[in-house]
Amino acid sequence: MPDMNTRLYLVKIGGHVLDDEAALEKFLNDFAALEEPKILIHGGGKQATELSKKLGIEPRMVNGRRITDAQTLELVTMVYGGLINKNLVVRLQHKGCNAIGLTGADAHLIRATKRPAGETDYGFAGDVHPSGVNTPMLYFLLKQNTVPVIAPLTFENGTLLNTNADTLASVIAVALRMHFHIKLIYCFEKRGVLQHAGDDTSVIPVMDMAKYRQLLEAGAFRNGMLPKLENAYAALEQGVHEVIIIHAAELLKNRGAEVYGTRLIR
Amino acid sequence: MPDMNTRLYLVKIGGHVLDDEAALEKFLNDFAALEEPKILIHGGGKQATELSKKLGIEPRMVNGRRITDAQTLELVTMVYGGLINKNLVVRLQHKGCNAIGLTGADAHLIRATKRPAGETDYGFAGDVHPSGVNTPMLYFLLKQNTVPVIAPLTFENGTLLNTNADTLASVIAVALRMHFHIKLIYCFEKRGVLQHAGDDTSVIPVMDMAKYRQLLEAGAFRNGMLPKLENAYAALEQGVHEVIIIHAAELLKNRGAEVYGTRLIR
Repeated sequence: MPDMNTRLYLVKIGGHVLDDEAALEKFLNDFAALEEPKILIHGGGKQATELSKKLGIEPRMVNGRRITDAQTLELVTMVYGGLINKNLVVRLQHKGCNAIGLTGADAHLIRATKRPAGETDYGFAGDVHPSGVNTPMLYFLLKQNTVPVIAPLTFENGTLLNTNADTLASVIAVALRMHFHIKLIYCFEKRGVLQHAGDDTSVIPVMDMAKYRQLLEAGAFRNGMLPKLENAYAALEQGVHEVIIIHAAELLKNRGAEVYGTRLIR
Repeated sequence: MPDMNTRLYLVKIGGHVLDDEAALEKFLNDFAALEEPKILIHGGGKQATELSKKLGIEPRMVNGRRITDAQTLELVTMVYGGLINKNLVVRLQHKGCNAIGLTGADAHLIRATKRPAGETDYGFAGDVHPSGVNTPMLYFLLKQNTVPVIAPLTFENGTLLNTNADTLASVIAVALRMHFHIKLIYCFEKRGVLQHAGDDTSVIPVMDMAKYRQLLEAGAFRNGMLPKLENAYAALEQGVHEVIIIHAAELLKNRGAEVYGTRLIR
């Protein structure tokens, strides 16, 4: 089963790209053009917020983290699992990419643990671990030349759970690292990790963990970057071969060994 | 690849069962308990109507058929492809059934043709044909012991299309008839096809096409029954081995050769 000479592209896109039609169209063209085996993991976008407003569901946040109550779980099941996921799939199919849209519940692909209620009850939030990933099924799907497009929903005990897409990408990368040479790519709307959050020209080309900790302590990273980096380093520490953080428009430029964006190293 | 000694259960459930929690729970337990290879095809239920009301989307009907405009397509993508499909999947997983939820766009499972606008423009409505079914992929999924759970959405040219679930079940049955001995089962809230629409004790145990045409001309069938019968006979005429119409609560009773409900014959 292992296939360590095969490079697997594990690409994560987030809300900013999903919400920008021109950026999304370019990204999907580029993703479809990648010839290697690949998996796309997507987050949510404005569509969830917009639908939640229309339905009068108040987002409940604690310490900047969303609480997934029953209504919110229904909402993200519709928007992440339905609207976003299936539209990505049908568009990729039209570009010649044999996408198959899945949540963690499908073929028990990604089992999670409902986050225990401590000081805060996060509701239907699922914490994931590489051992919860159904690697044989992912492997079989890839061998059929299908391209899994994975929504950030997992499951436990008959319930769907909302899961951070950055974490999901990291955990899937770790689970598949024994079967493929993994290239884990976080795509977003900046050209890489910035030394100075406001300055788009300050991309850090290579960042090791010492530098990461130093910048972390200096408070250099904005909110959205923190979970990305945390999850990216978790993947590296567990043996994922390559981890890069790049602009969504530069996916194809990053096919080779050279990195346009930020390469993370241990 | 053909496997004609293997019986494949192709089960369709509609809105009435989806909307009745007790009936749905029993149905899912029974479906999960079927040991043979199986596929579930589901329609929509009240949830689509409820969400459409909340969002202020007016259902547009012409001659009793829904027009799928762009807003309605988004709605059914969320509700059929997301909410209903993924909740069926996660509940079946909890019952030990390795469900995988799919639309026709996933792995280009069911390609359709957008219904041409004639006197009426039905919008994003997809007409399906057995040649549009990706039988190798369905076969592969069944051989992996996964259980496809299929939402009534198909696709063409980068667009999702809304498709009648009764038709979808019939077309999939025809496409797979060369590979399995097919038992196509339409499950609903009555104990079979009724001789007298109002009389639940008037179940017709066996109905051939002559009797069907005779009752059709006499106006014996209510609206919901017509597409079911039309699609059921289309399947029979194209070589599907067994077609039965039964109460959703009587799925397990209908595992053997005896039929509790209505058996259709040519």
